[in-house]
Amino acid sequence: MDDVALDLSLDAAGLTAQLVDAPSESGDEKALADAVERALRALPHLTVDRHGNNVVARTNLGRAERVLLAGHIDTVPIAGNVPSRLDEDGYLWGCGTSDMKSGVAVQLRIAATVPEPNRDLTFVFYDNEEVAADLNGLGHVAAAHPEWLAADFAVLLEPSDGQVEGGCQGTLRVLLRTAGERAHSARGWMGSNAIHAAAPILARLAAYEPRRPLIDGLEYREGLNAVRVEGGVAGNVIPDACTVTVNFRYAPDRSPEEALAHVREVFADCGVAEFVVDDHSPGALPGLSHPAAAAFMKAVEGTPKPKFGWTDVSRFSALGVPAVNYGPGNPLLAHKRDERVLASLINDCEARLRAWLTS
Amino acid sequence: MDDVALDLSLDAAGLTAQLVDAPSESGDEKALADAVERALRALPHLTVDRHGNNVVARTNLGRAERVLLAGHIDTVPIAGNVPSRLDEDGYLWGCGTSDMKSGVAVQLRIAATVPEPNRDLTFVFYDNEEVAADLNGLGHVAAAHPEWLAADFAVLLEPSDGQVEGGCQGTLRVLLRTAGERAHSARGWMGSNAIHAAAPILARLAAYEPRRPLIDGLEYREGLNAVRVEGGVAGNVIPDACTVTVNFRYAPDRSPEEALAHVREVFADCGVAEFVVDDHSPGALPGLSHPAAAAFMKAVEGTPKPKFGWTDVSRFSALGVPAVNYGPGNPLLAHKRDERVLASLINDCEARLRAWLTS
Repeated sequence: MDDVALDLSLDAAGLTAQLVDAPSESGDEKALADAVERALRALPHLTVDRHGNNVVARTNLGRAERVLLAGHIDTVPIAGNVPSRLDEDGYLWGCGTSDMKSGVAVQLRIAATVPEPNRDLTFVFYDNEEVAADLNGLGHVAAAHPEWLAADFAVLLEPSDGQVEGGCQGTLRVLLRTAGERAHSARGWMGSNAIHAAAPILARLAAYEPRRPLIDGLEYREGLNAVRVEGGVAGNVIPDACTVTVNFRYAPDRSPEEALAHVREVFADCGVAEFVVDDHSPGALPGLSHPAAAAFMKAVEGTPKPKFGWTDVSRFSALGVPAVNYGPGNPLLAHKRDERVLASLINDCEARLRAWLTS
Repeated sequence: MDDVALDLSLDAAGLTAQLVDAPSESGDEKALADAVERALRALPHLTVDRHGNNVVARTNLGRAERVLLAGHIDTVPIAGNVPSRLDEDGYLWGCGTSDMKSGVAVQLRIAATVPEPNRDLTFVFYDNEEVAADLNGLGHVAAAHPEWLAADFAVLLEPSDGQVEGGCQGTLRVLLRTAGERAHSARGWMGSNAIHAAAPILARLAAYEPRRPLIDGLEYREGLNAVRVEGGVAGNVIPDACTVTVNFRYAPDRSPEEALAHVREVFADCGVAEFVVDDHSPGALPGLSHPAAAAFMKAVEGTPKPKFGWTDVSRFSALGVPAVNYGPGNPLLAHKRDERVLASLINDCEARLRAWLTS
């Protein structure tokens, strides 16, 4: 691909179109990362670092607070929806318009146009968000250079339709295995049925009453659900094994250890033969009580909502940085062939962030 | 293959060796069926019919009772265990020695050596027992010529280790499906979990108390078991479907209709969205109270045992003919590479049947 040139003097919507027209599917972000790095290095008020295809820029004004604006530069695979096009209703169409090159455009615009912010700023542009968690560029930066991510408050510009989504819930997946003994089903009494042994597990799940805790004024909703069940050998065999896969979505007032202990306790007397943690990503507290967050909420004039799904804000939480999602894209259009974003919303998002950082 | 020649003047053990040395895997029984037909047509006291590779021979002496001796002539695939060999301990080794060319040899010996039995005799030799039920030769004869199978009592010479196994249990397999509504597991309250909906089904199965009814002096043992459970879409999705496959093994005092009604009733209030009959084979009453059966029991000096598994005796039961399993082979060695049978047991079985039919 030819070198990508970004023009930071365009408004955020125009810059979004430039970004969309520079394809950067996960794993193929180098050209765009180069362009972002070049554009930022041209700004004398920023220092710029790079780790792989992740670019971090910051002001160093000695302000009392530092806020961080983060976004991923990769997209899901293009589905015949590049280059971008602006329709007569003001929608910009194309892969990444919502998720999340519009958010990246807002970051770049703030970087270029707010040389003396009221809080020190850190801008993070990272790769491989749309693929396996272990490839995630934000995770790589957090592991290699955690000091680059130090801040009092972070805004992840993932699509949230201009709403503030505070924190995120944690997600824990465990396998609950029951055991039995095989036998021919014509002589069932010779064996022990592992599927029948799973009855108390399903009963416990069906009766479970999830919490709805209030945290920083946001109501979270937990959930404990079987997402898979499998057992059986053949149509005439008493099965000796059955596995119920359970997904616990938990509010961010529980630590990962507390969440795991809770699930163990729920199924403590259900005859589980083996308890296996399959996957675990902690939640993130919304942190809306922090002064920087309060000022942010006022500037964006939003009513914060809890974030039920898991997002990268949790990575900031793990570093001790409260974080929220706030971006111009529409999450319902993410990953879709007809992905689009209202151009005026991108510019509006830029304006609100500028107001927060310059007032 | 060259024409097979059977020598019915050999004893049953010697004849078994001849039969084993004439391979007749399921689907490839023609040569052996031809040989059986030729051998029987040479006996002037019998009339012989043929349907496909199934051969039926009978006496027509106008006796008050008619008994039927049946056996299948096919075997499972040969596993390097043909030709047969007799070891120094008196065991005859080879594919089909137990299941069930030793039983077929006894049939042929009785056919050849009892020209004036005390009860009229029908001999049935059929194909394709070891494969799918719809290929079974006994079923084909029953459908095309049910009058060929008319009798007061039937003995199926399947391997039973010289024990009498009365009747057989029925087997019914049903799919119990629950329904729900998909949702992302981060927002579980938007959906409805079909795996949780299966909790009452598993609870009912775990609590089920099977009957142990006494029929003709034999204690049967029923069983109701989940043999498979499956549900789940992905690790983060509330599943909208779950299926529990249940196998009901029932004593032969229940008709197929009664068995099905019972299972429907057991799960009536368990939230089953769909009830699908996957497979159903009725049981067979032992019929040991019939005079011919009583005389048979006395001649073979056995203590009858209930048959828990399903066998072709059920096909006779469906035709109104009480039937038992009684054969010289060992069922535990059936289908095994080291299949074998004690030669003296084959001759003993022949002697007992002759005593019953000539006393």
